[in-house]
Amino acid sequence: MDFHTEFKPLTVQPQMIEGKSFEMIDEEIGEHPFTVEQYRVVQRVIHASADFELGRSLVFHPDAIHAGVQAIRNGKRIVPDVQMVQAGISKPRIEKFGGDIRVYISDPDVMEEAKRLDTTRAIISMRKAIKEAEGGIFAIGNAPTALLELIRLIKEGETKPGLVIGLPVGFVSAAESKEELAKLDIPFITNVGRKGGSTVTVAALNALSLLAEQV
Amino acid sequence: MDFHTEFKPLTVQPQMIEGKSFEMIDEEIGEHPFTVEQYRVVQRVIHASADFELGRSLVFHPDAIHAGVQAIRNGKRIVPDVQMVQAGISKPRIEKFGGDIRVYISDPDVMEEAKRLDTTRAIISMRKAIKEAEGGIFAIGNAPTALLELIRLIKEGETKPGLVIGLPVGFVSAAESKEELAKLDIPFITNVGRKGGSTVTVAALNALSLLAEQV
Repeated sequence: MDFHTEFKPLTVQPQMIEGKSFEMIDEEIGEHPFTVEQYRVVQRVIHASADFELGRSLVFHPDAIHAGVQAIRNGKRIVPDVQMVQAGISKPRIEKFGGDIRVYISDPDVMEEAKRLDTTRAIISMRKAIKEAEGGIFAIGNAPTALLELIRLIKEGETKPGLVIGLPVGFVSAAESKEELAKLDIPFITNVGRKGGSTVTVAALNALSLLAEQV
Repeated sequence: MDFHTEFKPLTVQPQMIEGKSFEMIDEEIGEHPFTVEQYRVVQRVIHASADFELGRSLVFHPDAIHAGVQAIRNGKRIVPDVQMVQAGISKPRIEKFGGDIRVYISDPDVMEEAKRLDTTRAIISMRKAIKEAEGGIFAIGNAPTALLELIRLIKEGETKPGLVIGLPVGFVSAAESKEELAKLDIPFITNVGRKGGSTVTVAALNALSLLAEQV
């Protein structure tokens, strides 16, 4: 008899896998400096990366969790820097509060303007986004240039996002851009160092929308 | 005078950032066991993760690079396990050879069948994919269950992919699924351990399509 028949469930269900994973993370992380709600984000970042070092490197503005949850509950726009971040975000949990998710980097007018000014699409996409996503959540997982431009626009009083998740990965400007973000007195979630990326940015945002669903 | 005017390019261009990043990776990686072409994949995985440990954990079947490049050049289908992997793949470089990228996990018939059999959509998506992507590249960055099912189908002679990129991340089944993949004598790219994920899977595939473009 073939135990691998087509009709035999081969694995446990995704929810069970997630629960077991979270137990393992709880067991392995040991002491940490995070609040209970911050830890929900840290836990999901570790789950998405299998990297405790990355999870431990997260830095939260004191208002970050509250501000992020409120922005989601108030149906504010989510602005990922790239399509990959957008693809990973749990859309139903954003839309049930009336929010939407909008990436600007491939808009024809953004591409044209970047060419005209000889700069990056990431930069121009932030200039466009701040006009259409006041009070929203910016989720930057890829482009340090987008994060640096967003920081500039915030410093100059051009915009006041509900929350900035700034977790770009890389060897050039990524760590530096996150250091700059951590200096601002606005709600932010970021981390120390080169690591980061689309998957952990998605994990952080999805952790917040799960918190937003809770009473 | 304000140096942060709207018309001043604020950063170097993306290609320059990438070139500089690759130089830094070359300087920091030190001795490694990879061939020149395998290293192209490793380098891009490190670029996408800022994680040398992850880059060094990659394992290549001896035919992996050649088989992957040939599959892309022959216009074979690319099958990512999830939308996030699809979103990151450089589409023009696949399409110029006549290939396409197709995710099955959200197909209505896949969802129905998974419900009927009380199993995961990831598993059913692989059963459907093998019928439509003979000789193609499977790029599994998220779901160990998808990879385990694909391995089962290969072992039972149901399919012979051109290449399997198996880099799921996680605490349950991820490392084990990759160990199983590494035992097969088919072209594969995988790694040792829990780490992996959508961004590094994308990086590996994009490295191959860049190689495919070279003479």
